Amino acid sequence: MEGARPVRAPRGTTLTAQSWTTEAPMRMLMNNLDPEVAEHPDDLVVYGGTGRAARDWRSFDAMVRTLQRLKADETMLVQSGRPVGVMQTHEWAPRVLIANSNLVPDWANWPEFRRLEQLGLTMYGQMTAGSWIYIGTQGIVQGTYETFAAVAEKRFNGTLAGTLTLTGGCGGMGGAQPLAVTLNDGACLIVDVDESRLRRRVEHRYLDEVADDLDDAIEKAVAAKNERRAWSVGVVGNAAEIFPELLRRGVPIDIVTDQTSAHDPLSYLPEGISPDDWHDYAAKKPEEFTDRARASMAKHVQAMVEFQDGGAEVFDYGNSIRDEARHGGYERAFEFPGFVPAYIRPLFCEGKGPFRWAALSGDPKDIYATDKAVMDLFPDNDRLQKWMRGARSKIAFQGLPARICWLGYGERDKAGLAFNDLVARGEVSAPIVIGRDHLDCGSVASPYRETEAMADGSDAIADWPLLNALVNTSSGASWVSIHHGGGVGIGRSIHAGQVSLADGTQLAAQKLARVLTNDPGMGVIRHVDAGYEIAEDVATERGVRVPMREG
Amino acid sequence: MEGARPVRAPRGTTLTAQSWTTEAPMRMLMNNLDPEVAEHPDDLVVYGGTGRAARDWRSFDAMVRTLQRLKADETMLVQSGRPVGVMQTHEWAPRVLIANSNLVPDWANWPEFRRLEQLGLTMYGQMTAGSWIYIGTQGIVQGTYETFAAVAEKRFNGTLAGTLTLTGGCGGMGGAQPLAVTLNDGACLIVDVDESRLRRRVEHRYLDEVADDLDDAIEKAVAAKNERRAWSVGVVGNAAEIFPELLRRGVPIDIVTDQTSAHDPLSYLPEGISPDDWHDYAAKKPEEFTDRARASMAKHVQAMVEFQDGGAEVFDYGNSIRDEARHGGYERAFEFPGFVPAYIRPLFCEGKGPFRWAALSGDPKDIYATDKAVMDLFPDNDRLQKWMRGARSKIAFQGLPARICWLGYGERDKAGLAFNDLVARGEVSAPIVIGRDHLDCGSVASPYRETEAMADGSDAIADWPLLNALVNTSSGASWVSIHHGGGVGIGRSIHAGQVSLADGTQLAAQKLARVLTNDPGMGVIRHVDAGYEIAEDVATERGVRVPMREG
Ligand SMILES: NC(=O)c1ccc[n+]([C@@H]2O[C@H](COP(=O)([O-])OP(=O)(O)OC[C@H]3O[C@@H](n4cnc5c(N)ncnc54)[C@H](O)[C@@H]3O)[C@@H](O)[C@H]2O)c1
Ligand SMILES: NC(=O)c1ccc[n+]([C@@H]2O[C@H](COP(=O)([O-])OP(=O)(O)OC[C@H]3O[C@@H](n4cnc5c(N)ncnc54)[C@H](O)[C@@H]3O)[C@@H](O)[C@H]2O)c1
Repeated sequence: MEGARPVRAPRGTTLTAQSWTTEAPMRMLMNNLDPEVAEHPDDLVVYGGTGRAARDWRSFDAMVRTLQRLKADETMLVQSGRPVGVMQTHEWAPRVLIANSNLVPDWANWPEFRRLEQLGLTMYGQMTAGSWIYIGTQGIVQGTYETFAAVAEKRFNGTLAGTLTLTGGCGGMGGAQPLAVTLNDGACLIVDVDESRLRRRVEHRYLDEVADDLDDAIEKAVAAKNERRAWSVGVVGNAAEIFPELLRRGVPIDIVTDQTSAHDPLSYLPEGISPDDWHDYAAKKPEEFTDRARASMAKHVQAMVEFQDGGAEVFDYGNSIRDEARHGGYERAFEFPGFVPAYIRPLFCEGKGPFRWAALSGDPKDIYATDKAVMDLFPDNDRLQKWMRGARSKIAFQGLPARICWLGYGERDKAGLAFNDLVARGEVSAPIVIGRDHLDCGSVASPYRETEAMADGSDAIADWPLLNALVNTSSGASWVSIHHGGGVGIGRSIHAGQVSLADGTQLAAQKLARVLTNDPGMGVIRHVDAGYEIAEDVATERGVRVPMREG
Repeated sequence: MEGARPVRAPRGTTLTAQSWTTEAPMRMLMNNLDPEVAEHPDDLVVYGGTGRAARDWRSFDAMVRTLQRLKADETMLVQSGRPVGVMQTHEWAPRVLIANSNLVPDWANWPEFRRLEQLGLTMYGQMTAGSWIYIGTQGIVQGTYETFAAVAEKRFNGTLAGTLTLTGGCGGMGGAQPLAVTLNDGACLIVDVDESRLRRRVEHRYLDEVADDLDDAIEKAVAAKNERRAWSVGVVGNAAEIFPELLRRGVPIDIVTDQTSAHDPLSYLPEGISPDDWHDYAAKKPEEFTDRARASMAKHVQAMVEFQDGGAEVFDYGNSIRDEARHGGYERAFEFPGFVPAYIRPLFCEGKGPFRWAALSGDPKDIYATDKAVMDLFPDNDRLQKWMRGARSKIAFQGLPARICWLGYGERDKAGLAFNDLVARGEVSAPIVIGRDHLDCGSVASPYRETEAMADGSDAIADWPLLNALVNTSSGASWVSIHHGGGVGIGRSIHAGQVSLADGTQLAAQKLARVLTNDPGMGVIRHVDAGYEIAEDVATERGVRVPMREG
């Protein structure tokens, strides 16, 4: 095989590898590149700017080949999307170990990263792209749903009905926003320069319609708000122009955020450039493009701050646009908060985060069986129950059927063991893989997002995600990854991922019990260490051991 | 227990912890702080500027207490010298996982590091300080011996007899230089601002004498050179003044290097400041001190470059003084090479590096037994045989008896298994721990030192040390660590350590076989990936698997 081609993971119960322990990472690697899942599969780009699953097609082929032959006590090493070694380990060890995009800090900037990328020495792994547990836009809907629910609780008496949300960026992650707003009963206006991105979200039922032009969009969005209708409208245009224009026209917007790919200035289209010229221009004149993108982001963010001045609820949605706008010369960029300190941190203190799983069989029935298991396990968790019902009825699967819901310490292991039992009893037809986003309670250091404004000032301490990777490697995860620069871009984050296998065996049960306890346990101890009371209570009540608290 | 006190690891075969798997890290942590071993034990500083073994005494006590109670399937997590968690893992997993000094790259600079350190949130772990396998100055003598032997081979027909080496810094690492030069039959003049450092080396037989003043030092050093006598002379003074002065006087110096603690500008004394005022001044005005230190380093390095202009062999010895001098305004700083590309890289290609081990019994006889085992295993390796003889006769143990020698891929596992057999047969009285420096073939990314001038330009790629830590965690190491900033300072390196236990059990043998193959294996695959032919040959001949080379 050579070069780009459509990739689709095998379905069913026939193994192409030596066992499910290696079939699982192989199918999930392939699934990340499935045209139903990946944003630009021919370039091996899964989501989030240039987040890749493999460095190049030769590396992809070598990984598949190696996984197919790999034995149950061997481990494949992956360096930024390329397989660089196979070593003998043991059956409790991960079958794949991954390090993506990591650079020595003094060299950790976009120009040096791109130089190395062009030399063929690295790739950008984003979070779940290079760690093979991206499950399409659904992956982010739940987090986005939780965030908007928290906004509703904080400012709008628990519902977004009668509010209008303005946002930008309708890509792999950002495309979840309109659905998350409407799941919370609100109206949403979303701006993207690329019409095809908006159309794709309509196809997948994440967005209700694309307006003809700005006037049409405003009319429809404001009507929905006034009628307290859950409805989302997309409009083609550049956020750097549209946001200020909406401000100027005094459109009654209640909530403002943004998920353009601002973390990578070459993935944010500056005003005055047509989308057709985008990639050529960015490739040929990266410095000039960066300056123009930052100048546009400055205008974009200035409008956001001024919406806040006017009373709107405004937050950064994890794309580092505030720092880019600051580089672009706008001084007030950091006046609105990131979404984590504003809404998510209390969940992290309980070890809660984006737990997700996929059915290797490809059979949606398997996911429905796991849905039922989760709903049976946590009957009193109303938000979870509402989410699971909404997800099942409104969310289209992309690639291998998958599900996501936020679970905390003491919950994830229960769900994992229940899934393993379903496999053991034959109630689902093939093994399930269980992973999560790197945006989790104890797996990331990212001072403009997950660790912004920590109580003790420890935002930039990066020991935690590394310990997270090491402890998951020590607990029985199937593949473990350490990445740099996901979400907020090169230089700004260090984070770790894990995926574990429920193949119905006793060994898998032992591994799942450990990984799915220790992994969220990192979130609890990280927040205990930073002095959060909720985390201390969780540690005390649920028996999380912290040596400095012992006598 | 509270606050500073003398620490000494227990000796003998009586356990204070639950088993040797936890007794071992406990003794080695204590041994790192033994006043015989550590440079400033009261401050928990082991070596290399402020390289610490524990964040503070409370953390030290908590680690010892936790290790004493830790079960054979539990793991203690250490975040920059403080124990932050205990989690259930399994018996193949490390008992301790360590992450030291890691920062998100955009925040990875000394001022931010110091701010966080002052908040009590981090510590500087150097390499073997925070990973509990520092064995005193002996640890570096072998590497220094190898380096000077390579200098001799390259420029002086295989011997330093009749040559004079000038260097600076006679601390924990730097103190090995005079002995390494005399082991290679040369004469050495070494400058340090702190007389007590020089006296300590004389006590430990690393340095032959301390001169009365500069004139006396020059006379003695030049006499030794002229008489082709192996002899080392220390002189008290500031290298920023003495190096230029020696240049000015035209002293016939053949080789110039330096190991002051230049990697941390607060650990380098600028000219015009007395050693007594050093720490106060640095603590009170860190920015001003930094500027003055860099200005002095500029003069210091200028003299080195001008010695090179005059024909001397000049190299940077891994303390990042070139970059500091550049910051200090000296443009030609990078005109002399680092010691790794100049002398060490070919060894790295074979997976060679600073293999070391310590006898937990405290009994020197145990080390003598292992010395014999190593010499029996590799009878044809002349350099090794010569080193082992020299080490045994000239090197004083500090703390628990220990040994170091450079071994490569296919050699380390043999030695490890031989040691495990000695323990099993009772030929040594207690278990042996086997580790290494982080300055090893595949465990470090450090563009001014270990990965300077890589053939493919991949100097700054930091995936490799992370994969190294993950694979050692997957192979049965006893404790594994990931550090930032060792050797060359904050911002400039990422590196990993491992220590494994030979307790005579079958399980230990299986673990040692894997760790001591995979760990140097990382060096081989890292250099194969970068295109080094020696590494490709080693991979082919010794069967190291690299997926991109398979069909
Ligand atoms: N908050 C979170 O949980 C979270 C999680 C992951 C990623 N992110 C971040 O969110 C951002 C979006 O991720 P994604 O996967 O959707 O990226 P993506 O690249 O798939 O989509 C980005 C979209 O922005 C559009 N865009 C670019 N410039 C624009 C402009 N000037 N005006 C309007 N639209 C513009 C693009 O056309 C594209 O559709 C990234 O920065 C990512 O790192 C956030
Ligand atoms: N090449 C290697 O293999 C290797 C390995 C580890 C560390 N290092 C680096 O070598 C350096 C030395 O390490 P160390 O453990 O010996 O450090 P140390 O702090 O124990 O010793 C440094 C010595 O330099 C002296 N010094 C400081 N400023 C001086 C000046 N202006 N003039 C003369 N002497 C001065 C100090 O008095 C001290 O004795 C560090 O930068 C370290 O990171 C190199």
